[in-house]
This record gives sequence, structure tokens and C-alpha cells, in this order.
Amino acid sequence: MCGTDSPASINKSSLPSANGNGTRSPTCSSDHVLNLEQGDPAVFESYWRKMGDRCTMVISGSQLMSYISDFTNICWFMEPEFEEAVRRLHCVVGNAVVDDRYIVVGTGSTQLYQAALYALTSPGGPEPVSVVSAAPYYSSYPDETDYLCSRLYKWAGDAYEFDKNGTGPYIEVVNSPNNPDGTLREAVVKNRGDEGKLIHDLAYYWPQYTPIIRPADHDIMNFTFSKSTGHAGSRIGWAVVKDKEIARRMSKFIEMSTLGVSKDSQQRAAKIMGVLCDGYQNCKSANKSDDLFFEHTRQIMAERWERLRQMVERNQVFCLPKYPKQYCLFSGELIEPYPGFAWLEAKEGEEIDSQKVLRGSIKVQGRTGRRFGVAEKYVRISLLSNEEVFKEFLERLSTIKSMSSNGH
Amino acid sequence: MCGTDSPASINKSSLPSANGNGTRSPTCSSDHVLNLEQGDPAVFESYWRKMGDRCTMVISGSQLMSYISDFTNICWFMEPEFEEAVRRLHCVVGNAVVDDRYIVVGTGSTQLYQAALYALTSPGGPEPVSVVSAAPYYSSYPDETDYLCSRLYKWAGDAYEFDKNGTGPYIEVVNSPNNPDGTLREAVVKNRGDEGKLIHDLAYYWPQYTPIIRPADHDIMNFTFSKSTGHAGSRIGWAVVKDKEIARRMSKFIEMSTLGVSKDSQQRAAKIMGVLCDGYQNCKSANKSDDLFFEHTRQIMAERWERLRQMVERNQVFCLPKYPKQYCLFSGELIEPYPGFAWLEAKEGEEIDSQKVLRGSIKVQGRTGRRFGVAEKYVRISLLSNEEVFKEFLERLSTIKSMSSNGH
Repeated sequence: MCGTDSPASINKSSLPSANGNGTRSPTCSSDHVLNLEQGDPAVFESYWRKMGDRCTMVISGSQLMSYISDFTNICWFMEPEFEEAVRRLHCVVGNAVVDDRYIVVGTGSTQLYQAALYALTSPGGPEPVSVVSAAPYYSSYPDETDYLCSRLYKWAGDAYEFDKNGTGPYIEVVNSPNNPDGTLREAVVKNRGDEGKLIHDLAYYWPQYTPIIRPADHDIMNFTFSKSTGHAGSRIGWAVVKDKEIARRMSKFIEMSTLGVSKDSQQRAAKIMGVLCDGYQNCKSANKSDDLFFEHTRQIMAERWERLRQMVERNQVFCLPKYPKQYCLFSGELIEPYPGFAWLEAKEGEEIDSQKVLRGSIKVQGRTGRRFGVAEKYVRISLLSNEEVFKEFLERLSTIKSMSSNGH
Repeated sequence: MCGTDSPASINKSSLPSANGNGTRSPTCSSDHVLNLEQGDPAVFESYWRKMGDRCTMVISGSQLMSYISDFTNICWFMEPEFEEAVRRLHCVVGNAVVDDRYIVVGTGSTQLYQAALYALTSPGGPEPVSVVSAAPYYSSYPDETDYLCSRLYKWAGDAYEFDKNGTGPYIEVVNSPNNPDGTLREAVVKNRGDEGKLIHDLAYYWPQYTPIIRPADHDIMNFTFSKSTGHAGSRIGWAVVKDKEIARRMSKFIEMSTLGVSKDSQQRAAKIMGVLCDGYQNCKSANKSDDLFFEHTRQIMAERWERLRQMVERNQVFCLPKYPKQYCLFSGELIEPYPGFAWLEAKEGEEIDSQKVLRGSIKVQGRTGRRFGVAEKYVRISLLSNEEVFKEFLERLSTIKSMSSNGH
């Protein structure tokens, strides 16, 4: 999932503006609020700019006009080129088993999450199925589960809590690496026989963020173009699904929700993924790893984490999670995770409202831990901004000396 | 709305196939079922092919990457170029009032219909709000209303029936011109004070289908790229909304449903609408009306209706609706409607299953009247196929001599 939601609470005049070409003009003067609440993946734009025309998509006025892509596919609105590119990408990266699996395209993984809830439930049950995820959980799960007040399912909060006290049928969402805290996760609710079903949200299970410890092989695995290559504006996601009937029901959901998924964006995603994969097949032997997407972007994330950890260490106001090094099958090295978000915990006292302090003292907008089901001493900060904004964030962070003396 | 839904019931081997370029290879041999159940707008493809490179969209790999288009807009994921093109198109056509109205972009009008239901209801009511539409109503309304078993709203069927016997708060969907029967419509449920709210589905309120009798001016008016220009594969629709809070809630729905709408498709729609409008502003004086989209496509629809009416007249098996000529503000002429669907009614007997007979006797797949809330002597047939398929349909229709002796 995306790590992005409503900008409604943000001071509008202070946000980075996006123009129609997708280039962004950050406003970094110290008067302005620095918006690091959403996970807008601007960090990857410079890589694609370097690629020049290689990823340019050209669509004539008479192309891609039909609703239908392939009536012989369960997911009849999926472009065959998109499916092929997704399978190829997973084979190049080795992060998910795709052989003998169904692919379902969605309008971002937001839609696929809801498609999975629909596919895993059925009308007529005595009460809605409980949907849980281990806290801190992705802040949009509660709203995306409950906004239509469905009788099929309802948000039931923290999976650890449900494991202790919950009863009845449930769906556990396993977000790995987890948004907000970057940890690699497994299911939490245990020993329930047939009552439990799983959705794996693997939006960040890509080599720029985390070691690829094994090819993931779960019943429903959701991925998104937004976080894999950084193309959030295209609203493209996909699910890798074991069971044919579940794939059929997820496709049916998308049919009823939006009658398919933009073909323009599917074709563009196929092209961009294809160029990314070509890089690995043509260039790896030549050892020009800076031209390769995951090596290049992992390097950027590693540098950001190093600078961030130095700053956090120096001013002693926050802690950051520590991640174990693990062997990455993709790179063949023992490496650290470099998550897309910093999950900051205030060192002083349990009652500090870290979001409020950051906003009040250094005009940095993060997202409070409360939204993720935990204490407000936690705050999530996006590390996916462009370099100028990230640098400005570090500069502002360096001016905080103590939480309790700031912004209270 | 689109007039399209699940292909699941269709004989797969017999369908027109769509390749990745959007060109379609119809299979018209008499052994094959002719699929005229969906309203796939293939009829418009030849026009856009004639336009050559003028509508070609070019997107580089680094463009349109952000989730955000304009944080200062209530609909923050809407590309400014798209909004501008929509306003310009309505000004050129004169089919809707857009001044001082909000525009909300959606993933097709399917999503905007659901966004409107969400915007017009609120949690905590004693029971779900009734959603009604006058029969024959668009066949996808019931499923799109009920698939998530919402406590906010529920499908309650025919608006005429509700007007007589229904009680409590309701939403009436006014589809004009109506899919399936092509009639221009107004709200049916009367005299309910504040209990009733309206959604106007104006997917077919464009000059190729109907006289533009006035600039429509309703609270919520939904339109779609699929039926206006024929670009169904892009999944783009828009709502014209009077009330700011309703526009905000519709945008919130789309945020929670799909976290925005494909920017690639929004930009492509803006480009295509722009070329269409340029045609009117540059060429109308030169009287090259065959180059103009609505004149060109209206001419095709008029010819199809003439050929269809001749055939139906000749074999005396079905009736077609008769439409009054009305003054069209767009063309400045008194003209007939030429709907995108033929709404065929069997002449013989009330119990004829017209869909079954067409399928059994001439291998034509339409959609039964039952799906639209009326008798099965009615069947809806798409007139939006390409020319080859339409011609084959007429040839097959000419071989039917009597309903009761065919396919029973």
C-alpha cells in the first residue's frame, strides 16, 4: 500500500507543488511546512529522467479504446503485455513465486486490498469478518476497510490484540516490510484452523528497501507500481494469487468497482518494467550497476539512512528502529533494510506528541503514531521525497535539541 | 454508465479479440456468436485513426510520477489540464452547465456513481437509503449498489414502483438518455420534500446519440470518456457537481477507493478532448463537418439506425422505440435520437425470451430485459460495434422470420 492519504489536513500554501508534467517544485524555505506525511515517491524521478527516451510511451488516438483486453483471461481487463512484464519483473528480482499463479491488475494496491477483502468474504454471514493487522499497522487500512460500512467485513484493529482476545472468522493483513516501521513480518494470529485468511501487502518488498530473503509464496500477494518503480501517478498495482476462484472474485470486484483498469497506464507500466528488466539482462555482466534501477535507488536509500542515523544519533531526541542485516538473494550480499519511512520514537517520556512537536518546532509534517494504532510518541516521516526536501528535513531536524522544550 | 459488464457468460472462443494495440479482429463467420451484449464503443475507432498523429500522447518515463496533481483543488488528484479540457468540451457542446461547478475525475463513471452514493449518504442511519431508477434501468446499477452489502445504501429497484409504494430516504438515478431504451428522462419520484436526492447519469448526453435539448444543470451529473469519445480503455469519467461538500465527499471516496485516478489517462483524455474542441474552433467555419467528431459519428449512428429500422420493419419480428424529433441546440436542427443500443421488443406474446431466441437462432448475444428490470421479451443490442460486426448482425437478423418458431 502506498503510505499516502488525504492531504486535507495539510497547510495548502506550504506544500510542494506538482505541475502537469509530474515535475515538482519543492518549497524549502524555512517559513514553509515541509510535507513528509505522504509517501510520494519523488526520490526515484531522477533515475527515470536519466533514462531519457528509453521509457517513453507513445499512444495514438485510436489505440487502447476497448474495455476488453483478453476475454480468455479471468482478469479480462488486464493487458497481456502488462501481465508478461509483471511475471518477468518478479523473475528478475526473485521476490515472489509467480509460476502457476494468477495475476490480477488493479487501480493501485489500494483497490487490490479491497478486492481481496471482497474475495475472502461472502454475504449472509452472521456478522462481518474481522480484519486485523499487527500494530503499528498501515494507517489507511482502517478507513479503506470501513468507509462503506460493509456487512461483509469490518476493521478490528491490532492483530496481537485479536490473537489474545478476538473470536470468529478473521482476515489478517501482513504488511512486509511493514509500513510504517520497516520490519519484515509474518502472520501474528495463530492456531485458528480454517477461521483465518491472509492478505500479504508486499508493496515494499523490493531490493531498494529490504533484503530479498526468499521468493514470497502466499495465497494473495499485493504489489504496486507506486513503490516498486515510483510511478504513483499511474495508479497501477497487481496481485499474485494462488487460487483461481479468489483471482476470479478479485477481478469481479474490480469490474464492479471501476470496470477495469486504465490500459494506458498498464501499457506504460509494461514498458517501464520492461526497460528495467532489460537493464539486468543486458548490463549486469558489464558491471555498470549504477545504471541498474535497484542498485541505483538502493544506494540513494542507503545514503539517506546513513545521514538520518547520524543526525538522530547526534541530537539524541529520537530513536530509530535497528534492523538486522540479512542475506539478500537478489544482490547476493548481507545487507540492511533501508525502509521508505523513518519511524521516529521520542526518547523523552511516553506522552510526547511527536507529530505536534515536529510540526510546531521545525515545521515538518509527519504522521502521528496514533494513526498506526500506537502511541503518539511515534511519528512517521517519508524518506521518499526529492533530495532538496530530504536535505532540508535533516537541516531542520538538526535544530531540535529536546522534545519537551519544543512546541508544547 | 457504460452499458458493459461481465463477459463471464459469453462463449469465449467466439468473441471479438482485442490485441494490445486496441485494434480488434472481429470474428464474423456464421459459426461464431456475435457478442453485442457489451457497449464496447468500437464504432468510434475509425474516426480517431483518421486523425493520425494529432491525438498521439507521448509520456516520458519520469513524468506524472506523483500521487498529487494539485493540493489546492478539492479533487487533489485531478490533473489541471484534464479539468480545463472537460470545461472546454462542455462549453463547445453546450450539454451541461459548468460555470461555478466543481469537477471530480473518476476511474470511469462506474466509480463516480459509487462516489455519489457515498457522498449522498452518511453512517448511522436507521436503515440503508433506497437507491432507485425507473425501469428499464441500467443493468449494472443493482450490482454496483449492492456488491459490498453497505449499510449506507441498498438497491430498491424501479423508481415508478418506489414512487407508489416506497417510503423513507432515497436516491434516484436519472439516466438520460436512458440505457437501455434511449429515452430522455426526468426524475420519477415526486413530492418527497428533503427525503430524495438525485444522481444524473448523462453518459450518453452527447450529440452523436441525442439532440442536446438544453445545457443540463443538476446537482450531480456524471459523464464518461468511454461514451463521449469512445475511449473506454482509459477508464476516465467525471462528475459536474454543484455543492462543494458533495464534491469533497466524492473526492474522498475516490481517494479511499483507488487513491486517485490514472494521470496517464487523464492527460490522454485532455489531449483528445482538446483536439476535438480545436476542430470546432478551427474548422466549423470552413464547413468541413465530416472532420468534426460529433457530426461524423452522428452520421454513422444515423445510418445504422436507418438500416436497423428498415430491417426490423421488414421482418416484423421486433418493435423498436420511436423517438420524437427535438430541437438540438448543438446542431441548430430538429433531429432524432440515435441511441447506442437497440432496445428490441418481441411482437409475438409476452413470454418470449428474446435474448434466448436471438442466441439460439442467429447466434447473436444481447442482454435480456430481465437484467433491466422488465420482461424478457425485451433484449438490448449494442450498436457501437465496428462496421463489420454491425453488418453481420443485420444479415443475421434478416434471417429471423418468427420468434416463436426460433430457438424454443
